[in-house]
Amino acid sequence: MQFEVLATCHTTKARVSRMTLAHGVTALPTFMPVATQAAIKGLTPQQVEALGITLILNNTYHLNLRPGTDILQEAGGAHKFQGWKHNLLTDSGGFQLVSLSKFTKITEEGALFSSPFSGEPTMLTPEESMSIQHAIGADIMMQLDDVVSSLMTGPRVAEAMARSVRWLDRCIEYHEKSGRKDVQNLFAIVQGGLDPELRDQCLDEMIKRKDRVAGYAIGGLSGGEAKDTFWRIVKQCADKLPADRPRYCMGVGFAEDLLVCAALGVDMADCVFPTRTARFGVALTFQGPMNLKLSKYATDLTPIDENCPCPTCKGATTRAMLHHIVTLETVAAHAVTMHNLTFQAQVMGGARDAIMQGTFPAYLRRFFDDYFGDAGYPEWCVNALRSVGVDLLEGKDDAKVVQGDGARWEYSITNKRK
Amino acid sequence: MQFEVLATCHTTKARVSRMTLAHGVTALPTFMPVATQAAIKGLTPQQVEALGITLILNNTYHLNLRPGTDILQEAGGAHKFQGWKHNLLTDSGGFQLVSLSKFTKITEEGALFSSPFSGEPTMLTPEESMSIQHAIGADIMMQLDDVVSSLMTGPRVAEAMARSVRWLDRCIEYHEKSGRKDVQNLFAIVQGGLDPELRDQCLDEMIKRKDRVAGYAIGGLSGGEAKDTFWRIVKQCADKLPADRPRYCMGVGFAEDLLVCAALGVDMADCVFPTRTARFGVALTFQGPMNLKLSKYATDLTPIDENCPCPTCKGATTRAMLHHIVTLETVAAHAVTMHNLTFQAQVMGGARDAIMQGTFPAYLRRFFDDYFGDAGYPEWCVNALRSVGVDLLEGKDDAKVVQGDGARWEYSITNKRK
Repeated sequence: MQFEVLATCHTTKARVSRMTLAHGVTALPTFMPVATQAAIKGLTPQQVEALGITLILNNTYHLNLRPGTDILQEAGGAHKFQGWKHNLLTDSGGFQLVSLSKFTKITEEGALFSSPFSGEPTMLTPEESMSIQHAIGADIMMQLDDVVSSLMTGPRVAEAMARSVRWLDRCIEYHEKSGRKDVQNLFAIVQGGLDPELRDQCLDEMIKRKDRVAGYAIGGLSGGEAKDTFWRIVKQCADKLPADRPRYCMGVGFAEDLLVCAALGVDMADCVFPTRTARFGVALTFQGPMNLKLSKYATDLTPIDENCPCPTCKGATTRAMLHHIVTLETVAAHAVTMHNLTFQAQVMGGARDAIMQGTFPAYLRRFFDDYFGDAGYPEWCVNALRSVGVDLLEGKDDAKVVQGDGARWEYSITNKRK
Repeated sequence: MQFEVLATCHTTKARVSRMTLAHGVTALPTFMPVATQAAIKGLTPQQVEALGITLILNNTYHLNLRPGTDILQEAGGAHKFQGWKHNLLTDSGGFQLVSLSKFTKITEEGALFSSPFSGEPTMLTPEESMSIQHAIGADIMMQLDDVVSSLMTGPRVAEAMARSVRWLDRCIEYHEKSGRKDVQNLFAIVQGGLDPELRDQCLDEMIKRKDRVAGYAIGGLSGGEAKDTFWRIVKQCADKLPADRPRYCMGVGFAEDLLVCAALGVDMADCVFPTRTARFGVALTFQGPMNLKLSKYATDLTPIDENCPCPTCKGATTRAMLHHIVTLETVAAHAVTMHNLTFQAQVMGGARDAIMQGTFPAYLRRFFDDYFGDAGYPEWCVNALRSVGVDLLEGKDDAKVVQGDGARWEYSITNKRK
C-alpha cells in the first residue's frame, strides 16, 4: 500500500489522502459500500463501477461459507469471482460469528462456533481468518479481533481488548509468512469499548506494531452507544493514531456521522445503511432522508435531487415513478441504491474538495444547516465539531439544538417538507 | 409510422423491415420485452437502453390503475414517467381484465368488471381503452378486442371475433378524432380462435380497414393450444395480412417460437418469458436454457456464454458467481435478465442479418441443431418450417424428432449437459 496525505484542514483534523492498492487508487476520506455476498445488493459490478466507487467491502464469514475458499482460489480470488476490478476490503469474519451464530465461545485460540450448515463445532482462529482473507484476495484485510457489544462493561471489555492485541500479533505473524504482504494489507482494530483508559492501552500496544500494519480501524463502536460517547472515543483514537496510516471507523454510515468522523481525522467508513435504507424506499438527500413510499410523492414529477449525478436522477426518473414501483419492482430499490451510494460519495467528495480548498469548516456548516435546518442540530454533532474548532451555531442565535442522534427521518405524512 | 420492408427471404416468408415511430427506429423482426409496471423487472431504463432495445411493452390495465392517467398526462406520458426514450407499445387492457379480474362481463358496450381497488362496477370500452392509451402516449396502441381462451370452442368464439371487428371500428373512430393520429398508431388484432374459417372472416374484415390501421396483431394464441395448431393459425394470418403492414404475434417468447414465427412472416412478438425465467435463475443460451440453480454450476468459472455481448457475460460474471447469488441477491436475477434479453435480441438480430444476407434457411437449421441437438427436434417446428420450404432434417438421417412443445428445460441435475 502507498498512503500519502495530500492536504489537511487548517481548522479540523480532516485530511485528504491517496491510498494506492493492488487494484488502483482510492481517494480518502471515503465511504465504503458493503457487498456482503460479493454483490452490492441490487447492483451489478458494472453499475457500481459507473458510480465511481473504487473500494467496497466483502464479508469474510459469508464468502467462507459460500462459495468457500476452494472456489474463490480456483476463480483467482473474490475480485474475479464477482467481476470487481477495483479495491476490496474484507472484515475478519469475527463480527458475524458473534452476531449470527447461536453458539459462539471465545477462547484464547479463537472463536468456537457451531457451523450454521452442519451444526458442528468449528474454530475461527486469527490464522484461519488471515488464510480465508488471503484466499479472497482482499486488498485490505482486517485482523480477527475479540468483539464484544459496545454496551458491555466490566472485565470482559479489558479481556477482549488485550486479546485483540494478542490476536493482532498472530495475524501479523501469519500474514508476514504468507508471501502476500506485497499485494494484501493488514489493518489492526483498536478495541477497548467505551472506556478511554482501555482504548488508550490498546492504542499504545497497537501503535507499537505500526511498522507491521498498513492501517488502523476504530472498532467496537456504532453498536447503540450514546452518540456523545461515540464521538469522544473516535476523537481519542484518531488523535493518537499515526498520521501516516489510514484510519477506518467501522460501522459508520449516516451522513452526519461520516462528516463528524472526517472532521475528527477518520479516513474510511462502512455501513449497510445507504443500501439497506434504499431497499426500504428511502432516498438520501442533502435536505435529509426522503421516504418515497409517502403518498405525497405519487404526483411529484421531479427527480430525487435535480443536482445529483447518479443515473437515476440524471435519467430524470421522477419521485412519482419511484413511488409507483417502490413496493412493486426491485428495480426501484436499485435505482434508489444507486442514488444513495452516489449521495454518500457526494458527501465525501464534497468534503475532500473542501479540505483541499481550505473551506471544510464552511462546508460542514452548510451541510448541517441544509440537512437539519429548522429540525434542530444534533447536540452531539455540535459538541464534536466544536472539539475541532468548528461552531455549527456561530451566528445562529435562534438555532435549535436537539438531543439524541438527531437523525431526521421522514416516516410520517405529517412530517412535511417542501 | 413509416414501415419499409428492406429484404425478404428467398425461401421462407421472413422479412426485414424498418419501423419508424415517434421515438425512433426499430428494426424488425424483433422481440419486445414486457415492462408491466412501466419497468422491465429489475432493470433501469438506462440498462435496457444499453442492451440496444428500442421497443418495449407496457400494460395499460396496470398503468391505468396506478399511477393513473392524470399523473401520466401531467408527466407528459409514460415515456417521461418511466424515463424511456425509445418506442413503446401498449396492450388494450382487455386481456388483464379477463385474466386478473374476478368478475368480468363482456357486453357490446365493453368489458364490465369490478374494480380491484373499490370493487365497484367499472366499464372498459373501446373508446376508454383508446383514451387511456392516448394518455400513456404509446407509439403503438392495440385495439380493445374481445378475448376468449384459445382453448374455447363454440359460438362464443365467433361472437368474440365479430365483436372484435366492431370494437376495432369504434377504436378507429375514436383514434381518428383524437388528433393523435400522427404520433400514435393503432393496431388491429385478428381473432377467431383456432377455427381457420373464423380467422379468415376476421382477416377479411380487418384487411378492409387497412388504410385506417398502422399494423396487425395475431391475437388469441399462446394460450395453451397445441403447437401444431398454433403455427398453422399464425401461417394463415401472416400469409393473408397485407405485406405493407407490420405483423405482431402476441404472447410469443421461446426462441424456437420466435424463429418459426419470423419464418412465417411475423415481424414482432412479446412475452414475459425471458424476464420471468431469469428471475427463476434460468439463463437462455443457444444450447438451450441453463438452470443456474443446479449445483454443477457452483464451480463453473465460465460466463453464461463466452460469445454473448451482454454486460453480464462481457463483465466475465461467472456461472459460479450467479449460482452463488441466484437465490440470495436480486442482482442475480437482473444479471440474468440482461443476458436473456440480449439472447432474445441476438436470436432476432441474427435472423435479420441472415435474411439480409440470404442465408436465413441455414441460420434456422444451425439454430435448431444447436438448440435441440440430440434431445430431438420438436415435430411442430419441423412441420412449420417445412411449410415455408426449410427442412430441418435435411441430410440428418438419424435426427430425432419429438412430439409436444419440445422446450428443452434443464431443471434436474440428471439432465446433464457439458
